[in-house]
Amino acid sequence: MNPVNSARTVNVGICGLGTVASGTVNILTRNKKLIDARSGCNVSIVQIGARRDNPKVDTSGYSVTRDIFDVVNNPAVDIVVELIGGTTVAKDLVLTAIANGKHIVTANKALIAHHGDEIFAAAKAKGVTVAFEAAVAGGIPIIKSIREGLAANNIEWLAGIINGTTNFILTEMRDKGRAFEDVLKEAQELGYAEADPTFDVEGIDAAHKLVILASLAFGIPLDVKKVFTEGITKISTEDVNYAEELGYRIKHLGIARRSAGGIELHVNPTLIPEKRLIANVDGVMNAVLVKGDAVGPTLYYGAGAGAEPTGSSVVGDIVDVARTLLADPAHRVPYLGFQDEFVTEQKHLPMDEIETAYYLRMSALDKPGVLSKVATILSDSGISIEAMIQKEAKEGESTVPLILLTNRVQEKKMIAAISKIESLDSISAPVVRIRVESLK
Amino acid sequence: MNPVNSARTVNVGICGLGTVASGTVNILTRNKKLIDARSGCNVSIVQIGARRDNPKVDTSGYSVTRDIFDVVNNPAVDIVVELIGGTTVAKDLVLTAIANGKHIVTANKALIAHHGDEIFAAAKAKGVTVAFEAAVAGGIPIIKSIREGLAANNIEWLAGIINGTTNFILTEMRDKGRAFEDVLKEAQELGYAEADPTFDVEGIDAAHKLVILASLAFGIPLDVKKVFTEGITKISTEDVNYAEELGYRIKHLGIARRSAGGIELHVNPTLIPEKRLIANVDGVMNAVLVKGDAVGPTLYYGAGAGAEPTGSSVVGDIVDVARTLLADPAHRVPYLGFQDEFVTEQKHLPMDEIETAYYLRMSALDKPGVLSKVATILSDSGISIEAMIQKEAKEGESTVPLILLTNRVQEKKMIAAISKIESLDSISAPVVRIRVESLK
Repeated sequence: MNPVNSARTVNVGICGLGTVASGTVNILTRNKKLIDARSGCNVSIVQIGARRDNPKVDTSGYSVTRDIFDVVNNPAVDIVVELIGGTTVAKDLVLTAIANGKHIVTANKALIAHHGDEIFAAAKAKGVTVAFEAAVAGGIPIIKSIREGLAANNIEWLAGIINGTTNFILTEMRDKGRAFEDVLKEAQELGYAEADPTFDVEGIDAAHKLVILASLAFGIPLDVKKVFTEGITKISTEDVNYAEELGYRIKHLGIARRSAGGIELHVNPTLIPEKRLIANVDGVMNAVLVKGDAVGPTLYYGAGAGAEPTGSSVVGDIVDVARTLLADPAHRVPYLGFQDEFVTEQKHLPMDEIETAYYLRMSALDKPGVLSKVATILSDSGISIEAMIQKEAKEGESTVPLILLTNRVQEKKMIAAISKIESLDSISAPVVRIRVESLK
Repeated sequence: MNPVNSARTVNVGICGLGTVASGTVNILTRNKKLIDARSGCNVSIVQIGARRDNPKVDTSGYSVTRDIFDVVNNPAVDIVVELIGGTTVAKDLVLTAIANGKHIVTANKALIAHHGDEIFAAAKAKGVTVAFEAAVAGGIPIIKSIREGLAANNIEWLAGIINGTTNFILTEMRDKGRAFEDVLKEAQELGYAEADPTFDVEGIDAAHKLVILASLAFGIPLDVKKVFTEGITKISTEDVNYAEELGYRIKHLGIARRSAGGIELHVNPTLIPEKRLIANVDGVMNAVLVKGDAVGPTLYYGAGAGAEPTGSSVVGDIVDVARTLLADPAHRVPYLGFQDEFVTEQKHLPMDEIETAYYLRMSALDKPGVLSKVATILSDSGISIEAMIQKEAKEGESTVPLILLTNRVQEKKMIAAISKIESLDSISAPVVRIRVESLK
């Protein structure tokens, strides 16, 4: 006897049939027996809504509708899986589904980052669940780990490689000495980057994910506007190489930190010591480093995108939701890991008030006294030099590169000091400034 | 208004007051507001049972009893936290607590590995939960990740650095060229290793943890006798260095794999490519690499021991249990991640039938034709050589080291081939054999 035959059936409706949906449907089909054994339910796809077919998935055994709203209005559907992406139709779809009493599983980071609070409020009023593990870092169960696994901890900070495209580009720049534009072009050809790469390379996608992680870590409302973003378009192979020489790697990190002055949220290129495990996360892979007061540093690594890795998180959420479908909503895991009444605004630390160490690269005229002038400006600003590279001028060149690593200092102090350095006659170009984090 | 004041109270009874208990009590005290905000309950320590005090924890605000059985018989206690260790009194204590209708949180890997199935059966009959995140890899939420986060996946294999002592010793041997005995002595002085180090260095502790992970991954009953263990006592700095030269690191891994012939379970020193993230997990840190059919490889890293890291997992479990205290037991997450009726014996692959690649080191007489004889024996056994190091004889020595990496081959074939190699006149000592895994 298959005990699942006597188990309750949980009906899943899938909206969208793109990459993630194809992975989701294929996993639910291939691993059905295993999923039923884990969930204790008969987890069945009862309807798929998609404007067009996807050759990567065989839907012949399933009921397919061209109107995705059929799925959320289907009385048989228990769980709506939103995989259409975007924030307009997707929002309508999710809110309609909630109004109809459906539980929601979504992979849509932009939707959660921009409209999560509204969606959670609507879901709470209807007593339904909203699960979004797939929205951050693909197949890595990072949301569950922060929300539940680390529930004992006061999270001090987290730092993540949460965009595979920028990590691929930076890895290629380092491994092969290739220029940014060159690697970007290849990433586009490989399908790792979109035709318009802004979303990835300027850190907007990472900001969506960071704001979700920060809400889970600190119990703050979702507010994507509070994330400072700086892309990787200005990172040169020169800086990648000097970082290497200093024992560092440049990674595009999303960082959320609770410091004395408030909560800082920023996505930017960052030098990190090559000895840190996260410095060795290469290619399109993702990883998130989370520092809790009790547990210390923990790291979670895996594929950050792709049909089946992301589908793995979608289906993991479906199993979670299936298990608690009949539970008293008050005893379910709350959407953001904290009971709603504890999710409160906390002081936000503006970017010019954050403290970080810096990598500075400047072009100095090749004559005596320049270093001394630069050092004096830094010293007068309370900034100390932790490491330095000074090279001889190349044949026929009148400037030399001067590279410094500083101690931790408030960003506005550093900006003021750089402005003074740039006004020196002996400094011939804008100073390149990249943040440095020890991640200890 | 603090909403928690109106929340239901969940009373925790702590048994034991050693290292992990001190961390647990300190976290529950320090982070109480946060834990209540996450759990939606007023999580209170109602009693601590300990034969003696621990200077690392202030219990003055709590009711302390010298008889730990007072705790499990205390009608006010909802959750019993078993932190006394061992498998005799601890088993009595846990079974008595279950008989009294208490939910269980434990950090006791030996207890779960040896008596888990019996404990789970008793708990199921009484409708209570048994949670044991802290039993494997300290603060890393690896049990939750496999049991819930990766629930969509057919787990193919997992490989873990799940004993900090052996990882510390191997790291020091590599970093500083120190001998095993020398580092072991230091580890004992630092408190990383016990006076009797057998439990750690022979892989018994890791076997307890591996059998728990394997049950979660594959849905098999807990059976510690099925784990083959090989310690690190015979690993020499010579082998560490040759591994390095070949681009590998030696790690003491617990490996569980589902292959065509059955399930293999073994703890042994293993060469792994230095490019793998897990090869760079150093010192006392732990990490588990899990390969799912949908998600691909994922890795979980953090502190594998210590008061607060392990306490982090204990308290995470308390939050989980507090949330589902009133839930219908049928809808809780099952103990081993699978509904009990699906936890079934599966074919076990005996050690001599597993397939793995090998590192072989032999002492060959320094004369022509030796390599050819060795290569012929291997080739006749269907074994191919993937890489080789042959050094010149040192001044005044008559033998040369010959180091080979082979392809994947059944263990019994390799053992037979080695026996033939050892019978050659030109091979002067037993062949050193270490397993090699690519972990891709």
